[in-house]
Order: sequence, then C-alpha cells, then structure tokens
Amino acid sequence: MPTIETIISPAIFHLYEEEIHHKNVVVIDILRATTTMCTAFKNGATEILPVAKPEDAAALQKMGWIAAAERHGETVPGFDLGNSPQDFTKESVNGKKIAITTTNGTRALQMCEAAKAVFVGSFLNLSQLTNELQHRGDDLLLFCAGWKDKFNLEDTLFAGAVATELSAEFDIFDDATLAAIDLYNSAKNDLNKYLQKASHVKRFKSLHIESDLDVCLKIDSAPVLPVFKNGVIVQMNNEQTA
Amino acid sequence: MPTIETIISPAIFHLYEEEIHHKNVVVIDILRATTTMCTAFKNGATEILPVAKPEDAAALQKMGWIAAAERHGETVPGFDLGNSPQDFTKESVNGKKIAITTTNGTRALQMCEAAKAVFVGSFLNLSQLTNELQHRGDDLLLFCAGWKDKFNLEDTLFAGAVATELSAEFDIFDDATLAAIDLYNSAKNDLNKYLQKASHVKRFKSLHIESDLDVCLKIDSAPVLPVFKNGVIVQMNNEQTA
Repeated sequence: MPTIETIISPAIFHLYEEEIHHKNVVVIDILRATTTMCTAFKNGATEILPVAKPEDAAALQKMGWIAAAERHGETVPGFDLGNSPQDFTKESVNGKKIAITTTNGTRALQMCEAAKAVFVGSFLNLSQLTNELQHRGDDLLLFCAGWKDKFNLEDTLFAGAVATELSAEFDIFDDATLAAIDLYNSAKNDLNKYLQKASHVKRFKSLHIESDLDVCLKIDSAPVLPVFKNGVIVQMNNEQTA
Repeated sequence: MPTIETIISPAIFHLYEEEIHHKNVVVIDILRATTTMCTAFKNGATEILPVAKPEDAAALQKMGWIAAAERHGETVPGFDLGNSPQDFTKESVNGKKIAITTTNGTRALQMCEAAKAVFVGSFLNLSQLTNELQHRGDDLLLFCAGWKDKFNLEDTLFAGAVATELSAEFDIFDDATLAAIDLYNSAKNDLNKYLQKASHVKRFKSLHIESDLDVCLKIDSAPVLPVFKNGVIVQMNNEQTA
C-alpha cells in the first residue's frame, strides 16, 4: 500500500526532499493561501503564478495580471487583492491570470516543485483532492506550510482530514500523520469552535478578518483541483488538455 | 502569567533560541534518553555527562566512569550500558559517574544549554518537575528531542502532560502546546495502548526491547529532578548544595 507522511513545518522539509521525486505532495496553507487559490479557480481564474516578492507581482500587474500580495496577514498597499478568499470574487478574477505572494504558502509550493505531482489542498476541495490521490495511488506527503516555520493547528487538522479520507487505501505509520488524524477527530464536529484557540485565529481576530475563518472551513465548497507545475498553478483538467 | 511553548523537533529549535536566556527548558526524550537519566539518578548515579560521540564516552570509561552508548536504538558494542532504563540498576550505577551518548537526547541537551535552566523530563519525574516549574514561574519551553528531527508521538504526549499539569498557572496560546494537550487527553487513560501505533514503538518491537515501554510510561516512579548545567547533569538539590 502507498504511504502517507505529514511534514508539520517547512523547517523539516529537507528530511523528506530526497524521496520527493516519486511522491505526490499536497501543499496546505488553510489560513489562507491554498484556500484562496481554490476560491480563485472556482471563480474562473485561468492560472495563478506564485511569486516570491511583492515586487514580482507588481511587475506582472503592469502587464495586465491581477496582483495579490499579503505579508504578515495583511494586504500590501498598492495591490489589487490580498490573501482573503473573499477578495477573489467572480467579478475580480474570472478569466484572469493572477500573480500572488503570501507569507508561507508561496514558499512551500516552491520548495516542493520537484515532486511527482504537487496539489493545492484546502477544506474547499477536500473530496476532489482525495479522490484524485486515491486514484493515483502514489506515496503521499502532506506538507503543512505552517506559520513562519512553526507548527500550526489548522494545517495539521486538514492533513488529518485527508489522511482520514484515505486511511483505507494508504499505510499510515508516521507519527505526525497519526497525530493529525487524532487532532482532526477531536475537532471535526465543529472545526470553527475548535480553532478558536489557535494562535492563527487569534491573529485573525486582531486583524479584523474573522469572517474568513468560516469561508476557509467550508468543506467541498470549491470542487476544483489546482496543480502546481513548471512554476504555475492551473486546474488539473486544463493542464491535461494543454 | 508565564507562557508555555512546545518545540516539536530540534529542527525548529532555532526559532526559539533567541529568547532562551530567560526561559526554562525541559528536554524530553521519552524513548529513552531522559527516562534513562531519571532512572540513573533514582538508582544513585552522582552525575551524568552527555557526550556527542561514543569515542568520548569510551575515553571516560578508561578513567573509571560508567559508559553508556546507544545509536539507532541499540547498545554500541564495548560499552557498559546502552540506553535502556532497565540497564541502569542500583548495582550498576549507585555512586557512579556516567558518560552517555544517545541518538537524539544528548544533542537536544547541548542545543539548549544557554537557557535560564535546563531540566530533564520524563513520565518518571512528572510531578517533581511540574512542581518545580510552577514554583519558578518562568516562561517555559518544552523541547521534544524527536527522532532524527521528525515529530514523535511519545515526546509530544509528555509535553501535553506537563502543559496539562501547569495549565492553571501558565498562559498557553501556542498551537503546538494546544495540540500536545489534546493528544495527551486522547491518550492518558492508557498511554501504552495509545502508543502501540507510534513509529518509535514499532521500532522498539523490531529491536526486542518492548518491555522498556512500560518502564518509560510509569508516572512518578523516579521522583528526581535532574538539571543540566555547565555541561553535566546533576540532581537539583545536589547542585544547590554544591
């Protein structure tokens, strides 16, 4: 059976890097990069380019792209959008290319580009994602983007949700994945309530963007499957037909 | 109120290093370094010197020290003892100085030497440890030695046990500590049963040292308080009167 392992922080990514070529990776940044990316595709974005710096996004903005930039949870002044999924409406993104830079999620995507396949995961595309992973049947790494290299609850909970969905067809011996499953089981009846204690949610409250949390926890509300390949994120079917 | 944070792997220790001077650290390597150290003091060892390499322990062995060396879970040939707490009987360690080198625990101790105080923690000295931490009232870092820089369940469970004991007097906002508390709550009714799924316990089984697990989970069975200071570990009271 294929295996599932969970990388609980980008700071330990190097421990998994050597074997990445024959594994699929799901990049997880629930609050909010990967949630926002799923929302953008749901609302008609054609591609998303994750870039390292706000300057890079600004350069593409001049060429007609939508530019989204967030640092430390806030929209960088001068950009079209920040990192709130609620910014990425049909009106603002339909038919558009988006350049995006965020604190943790963009960096995590770039770290694992050498993987067999890189998927963008969030509660919004949970079933779409797990169906595909089950279908492919490759060894799997669940890569939590964390917060500035520290462990975070919401990304770990989502890793637990994915592993729970796949537990019949995958072999789970990895302590981090076992912990993620147990935490998800403690939380799943009311994810929002459970996450009220999380440090990131407290950070949200201080930034007055609390309403994002509900959006970020809506399971299967954006049935898309974004994949990261050759430096850009596209929807899987578009990639196949491209 | 003082704070508690949990360092879930030595690979992210650097994120906490800057503020370490005014914080107490508990080094946690349940299977088995810190458990074994507590057992050695309970059985009369006078001091323990954690050394980086088996060669260093061998040099001290020639000077009459007891030398203990473990790599990848097994006793290194030619040494008096390995890393099993069951090796550290009164007969073998009473009145003796011990030089010890282990895969993860020794390294973790050396990493945090600059802390305000460094304690050796295990289920065997849980109450002794938490009483002292409560008494001191300083900010606290629970440092899980892990397994080769990966997250492990048993160290995280112990971090959860310490945080649970101290939750009335300490402020806990850190996601890793919150997760550790929840995992400990899932496991506490039968730690041994819970840990049967852990990767480290499976490694134990393959090394035929299963009986160590029960010993390593006996709460308050070694009421000692080892502290690491100036490169050596001694019992706290001995250090104070020295």
